[in-house]
Amino acid sequence: MIELKPLIREVQDFPKPGVNFYDITTLLKDASGFRAVIERLKEHYQPTPVDLVLGIEARGFIFAPTVAYALNAGFIPVRKPKKLPAASEFVEYALEYGTDRLEIHRDAIKSGQSVLIVDDVLATGGTARATTQLVERLGGKVAGLGFVIELDFLKGRDRLAGYDVFSLLNYAE
Amino acid sequence: MIELKPLIREVQDFPKPGVNFYDITTLLKDASGFRAVIERLKEHYQPTPVDLVLGIEARGFIFAPTVAYALNAGFIPVRKPKKLPAASEFVEYALEYGTDRLEIHRDAIKSGQSVLIVDDVLATGGTARATTQLVERLGGKVAGLGFVIELDFLKGRDRLAGYDVFSLLNYAE
Repeated sequence: MIELKPLIREVQDFPKPGVNFYDITTLLKDASGFRAVIERLKEHYQPTPVDLVLGIEARGFIFAPTVAYALNAGFIPVRKPKKLPAASEFVEYALEYGTDRLEIHRDAIKSGQSVLIVDDVLATGGTARATTQLVERLGGKVAGLGFVIELDFLKGRDRLAGYDVFSLLNYAE
Repeated sequence: MIELKPLIREVQDFPKPGVNFYDITTLLKDASGFRAVIERLKEHYQPTPVDLVLGIEARGFIFAPTVAYALNAGFIPVRKPKKLPAASEFVEYALEYGTDRLEIHRDAIKSGQSVLIVDDVLATGGTARATTQLVERLGGKVAGLGFVIELDFLKGRDRLAGYDVFSLLNYAE
């Protein structure tokens, strides 16, 4: 089984001093590494009924559609403000300073559809939690949340209590 | 064979008055439609040696990684300024008013690698053309440019003369 952690590049002080950034681009350009990520997510969710896989702009768009394809599901995007052309719902969530907003098309989910949320990194869980709210507001059921990387020390999992949370790679610091 | 055009929603006056926007989100949420897009791109490029599939932030991230997975290739992102954590090259290109900048990691491509560029829409071709410059500056070979939608009336294809350009859906207006 291919080791994924050696394919991830650690960049010190990005995007700001004191932060250790886990750069997935070195994993993505490695065809076997990228394939292994998708296969492991596919394998984990194969027993779960999934109608739609949801991805969050921008890095979430890299993994979620590929998992949708692998699971034979549709893909729905959650985007930054003013990017979606049709009638949308929004949710606001807290950042370190201020708030941010995410949007979803009102017709993205039919009531009762099972929606898997896939993102690259689970950090504080703020974005993920806001996304579960959008899914539920549209009448969807959150099938689970899948991440490539989980930053355990930020305790994002605690904000997603009650949901099935799955990560491929965990980092303690 | 599934008809893709009926799955695309036309939104008048988005993002500004007078523009007819082709909304792919209605295609993406349809599992069979999304699968058909990827299968047709895969089929077209299967005979071409492709080491890497390149996607451009943000909507280009939806299709390019999935095509990479389907072709057993790696994925490399071209991003908006200041998003990439490691040493990068950039290219500037003209917009209607002013200029914009795209960035790529210097180590994204090894010299001689074959790079397929995949994006959702070919409009004026400005972004696509800038991206071919980035690929070639890093020593890569452009295997082709694949699009889901081509807006024929904007003549983007003319700016990509000399490259293999392939689109699934063409619109005359």
